[in-house]
Amino acid sequence: MNLTILGCYAATPRTFTNSTAQILDIKNRLFLIDCGEGTQVQLRKNKIKFSKINHIFISHLHGDHFFGLIGLISTFMLLGRNTDLHVHGPKGIKEIIKLQLKLSNSWPTFNLHFNELEAKESVVVYEDEKVIVRTIPLKHRIYTNGFLFEEKVEARKLNSQVVASYNIDKCYFQNIKNGKDITLDDGRVISNGELSLDPPVPMRYAFCSDTVYNEAIIPLIKDVDILYHESTFLDSEEALASKTMHSTAKQAATIALKAGVKQLILGHYSTRYDKIEIFKEEALTVFPNILLAEDGRNFSF
Amino acid sequence: MNLTILGCYAATPRTFTNSTAQILDIKNRLFLIDCGEGTQVQLRKNKIKFSKINHIFISHLHGDHFFGLIGLISTFMLLGRNTDLHVHGPKGIKEIIKLQLKLSNSWPTFNLHFNELEAKESVVVYEDEKVIVRTIPLKHRIYTNGFLFEEKVEARKLNSQVVASYNIDKCYFQNIKNGKDITLDDGRVISNGELSLDPPVPMRYAFCSDTVYNEAIIPLIKDVDILYHESTFLDSEEALASKTMHSTAKQAATIALKAGVKQLILGHYSTRYDKIEIFKEEALTVFPNILLAEDGRNFSF
Repeated sequence: MNLTILGCYAATPRTFTNSTAQILDIKNRLFLIDCGEGTQVQLRKNKIKFSKINHIFISHLHGDHFFGLIGLISTFMLLGRNTDLHVHGPKGIKEIIKLQLKLSNSWPTFNLHFNELEAKESVVVYEDEKVIVRTIPLKHRIYTNGFLFEEKVEARKLNSQVVASYNIDKCYFQNIKNGKDITLDDGRVISNGELSLDPPVPMRYAFCSDTVYNEAIIPLIKDVDILYHESTFLDSEEALASKTMHSTAKQAATIALKAGVKQLILGHYSTRYDKIEIFKEEALTVFPNILLAEDGRNFSF
Repeated sequence: MNLTILGCYAATPRTFTNSTAQILDIKNRLFLIDCGEGTQVQLRKNKIKFSKINHIFISHLHGDHFFGLIGLISTFMLLGRNTDLHVHGPKGIKEIIKLQLKLSNSWPTFNLHFNELEAKESVVVYEDEKVIVRTIPLKHRIYTNGFLFEEKVEARKLNSQVVASYNIDKCYFQNIKNGKDITLDDGRVISNGELSLDPPVPMRYAFCSDTVYNEAIIPLIKDVDILYHESTFLDSEEALASKTMHSTAKQAATIALKAGVKQLILGHYSTRYDKIEIFKEEALTVFPNILLAEDGRNFSF
């Protein structure tokens, strides 16, 4: 699992900082999460192949999370894209995009699907044989979802050497992968544990931005490997965080601690702070495993 | 008159090039012309004061000319702007902006006025005591206007030394500025040419992007000091220019020649070309005074 931070600052893009956008590479699927203004340029800078993005997940309709979407879709059109594109986001996003396409008299060269969200509880928004994505309902000034990206448990892997040593026929391989023991022609039963290896442990990534401190999300993100939780402010601005329905670094760390996550990534920093290290220092007083999102930073898990 | 090119490339913003946006400083009014994605970052890079922009002119609703507008308006809101903002652009622009403000539940802290255009002939879109701005109807794939920015003729200036030498009373100063001769108490008539100086010659800037080669604009831009005319393609791509309703460098130069303008600025280059010098070389075969727009370049006239 590989996470590239394209932008991790709140409010407004500036000369050297970008608003929210991330690329998650999970089981070779490339998911774009949020799409602030300038995301297409950040994709180019980080050498992400545009054509590999088939699903875009938008948390909410504040500009710093989606103003780059129409530009990215237009560029897909200019590049002659012909594969389907799926946009998952709050109800209304389809109207915004369609209106702009209509007024520019520009029509996609590909199928553009909208999966408009309005559920208040967690729902599945994407699923294939290897990955499942669910919403994490967040509390913000407008309707907002985080997203939980989850690898599915894979089949067990053949222990080829052992299987070969017993001369087991190919037709039993799927049974072995499914966890079954095998009875040989001479009647001996070979346990599955001997014939197969454990599959990789499935990983889970939870993206939670923007949100006020909200313990209701804890059951949904319990024990995840990586939690990205917004920390727009520091504890000194806790009242402002509460008023604007954002979180502090300390609150993000408290959620991470209570949810028992393995790793917390902080981001969505207010541009009022000159240095971001102070977010880590504050969060470390509550929770030990803290990483700081930075534009262009790549995390491999 | 001062022109800052924020972006001058066609189609799509890239790592080192930006789509169309310009700042025209005319008689201390700061006008933003077009607003491609990322314009607010370009404004910051070029140290333009956001608060000095009160009028934005949008040529047409293709993304590379206006996708940055909603982000800029949002940033004005975040900065707590309280002075009026006027957006002049094609009919439909108001719906696009208002829909996004509604869905983000964000409302301007200032009066946001839309001057929606749909006239097919040239109309005045802005006027004050020193400046007048008219549309230049262009021919493109969708409804498009260029803009003609024109300084008004100012009053004549007092030749203070001469006026003092005749002991002329202040109450006659306005008459002198208005071009009148003055009769002294002893009956001598002093000609206005002796008492006053010519005002600065008013300048005119014509912005023409995007457009196919179109001689119908020549009467509107006749003899202007500076013409910015799109040159998306080179002559070798003339068929493509015609098909997409853009111009070549040679065509832009031909318009400049036929309109008798003093200076031509080329821009809106297709990103297919690695170097822009070839646009100048081609245009020079037709017209002598060629400047190349470049992102971040500043022209003083």
